Amino acid sequence: MQPDQLVKQIEFIKEIDKIKYIQRKTKLFNSDRNENDAEHSWHLAMMAIVLVQHANVPVDLLKVLKMLLIHDIVEIDAGDTFIYDSQKNHTNTNEERLAAERIFGLLPAEQAAEFIAIWEEFEASQTDEAKFARSMDRLEPLLQNASNNGGTWQEFGVDYAKVYEKKKVINYGSATIWQYAEQLINDSVERGILKKAAL
Amino acid sequence: MQPDQLVKQIEFIKEIDKIKYIQRKTKLFNSDRNENDAEHSWHLAMMAIVLVQHANVPVDLLKVLKMLLIHDIVEIDAGDTFIYDSQKNHTNTNEERLAAERIFGLLPAEQAAEFIAIWEEFEASQTDEAKFARSMDRLEPLLQNASNNGGTWQEFGVDYAKVYEKKKVINYGSATIWQYAEQLINDSVERGILKKAAL
Repeated sequence: MQPDQLVKQIEFIKEIDKIKYIQRKTKLFNSDRNENDAEHSWHLAMMAIVLVQHANVPVDLLKVLKMLLIHDIVEIDAGDTFIYDSQKNHTNTNEERLAAERIFGLLPAEQAAEFIAIWEEFEASQTDEAKFARSMDRLEPLLQNASNNGGTWQEFGVDYAKVYEKKKVINYGSATIWQYAEQLINDSVERGILKKAAL
Repeated sequence: MQPDQLVKQIEFIKEIDKIKYIQRKTKLFNSDRNENDAEHSWHLAMMAIVLVQHANVPVDLLKVLKMLLIHDIVEIDAGDTFIYDSQKNHTNTNEERLAAERIFGLLPAEQAAEFIAIWEEFEASQTDEAKFARSMDRLEPLLQNASNNGGTWQEFGVDYAKVYEKKKVINYGSATIWQYAEQLINDSVERGILKKAAL
């Protein structure tokens, strides 16, 4: 029994409740209600469980789940950055790094180091697990926007080229899922919910 | 590549979005906003990752995470049942069984069978993984109510004996966590946010 460790862990568990207030730009499926980061993280984890057979190479699903469940916790301090925001780089900002150190730092030292390493691995997108996890993170809003008559594409005037550029990394995680996603992007142009040229 | 499988899997992924609309009785930490099932499931999964060292016996964390992430999906059809509702048995209602068959049945057959089996294993609470997963499910609302001046205990007039009865199963998953939880229950009585006798 390590009561000190447990007390620190409970503090962390209470702190991460705040992720439920972090609103994303993307809406729920067939909905005008914004998704929050807890809901988003749950959905990505479910997608990974369901779709893992399509990964380009066999991946460690437990590690993928850890990545997806924790990847947005830094947004408690740093806030959600819209993926098509050209003014602000999405990944690995100094703000996010400080957030990781503060929030994961609530945990016992060894566990904090483990969580920061998993978060960094996801952000770097180099390992097979990180690539597959990233492909889940890119697929969900694509499905949501397609279900919402263009969703954030319409709302923020995002065109085909920008969407294609952001979504093509799905291919690094799963060629099968990318084939599906590419078709969905093309269908969205045909349906008139995604513009070929910028507004 | 199995495009038919992928199409079924995407249908399932869209369908389970509805869990984000299922409101629980319990409120977020230090809050008067109800928690929904997606947020709850995410939080339990995070708790299992953080607390797994305290399980009474070594458990398969991947299986625990699968259980926690899917355990409330049946509530899309069956709705949330309040744990202290004496009129309705919480677990394994016929309604939940039909829901499991319909919703998990959207998946390819083999995967549907796997998900139903995992859900049933959680509900039965007999395996080490199910016991540890269950202890997470009982701990989160305890922490929430303690942070909310009694929360649902106050709102629905739930007393110490009822809380103790429901929470003591935490011990089957983790004696260490149960020791913490028991102390928190006793502290709640001392603080006057949990009544010794029913209202």
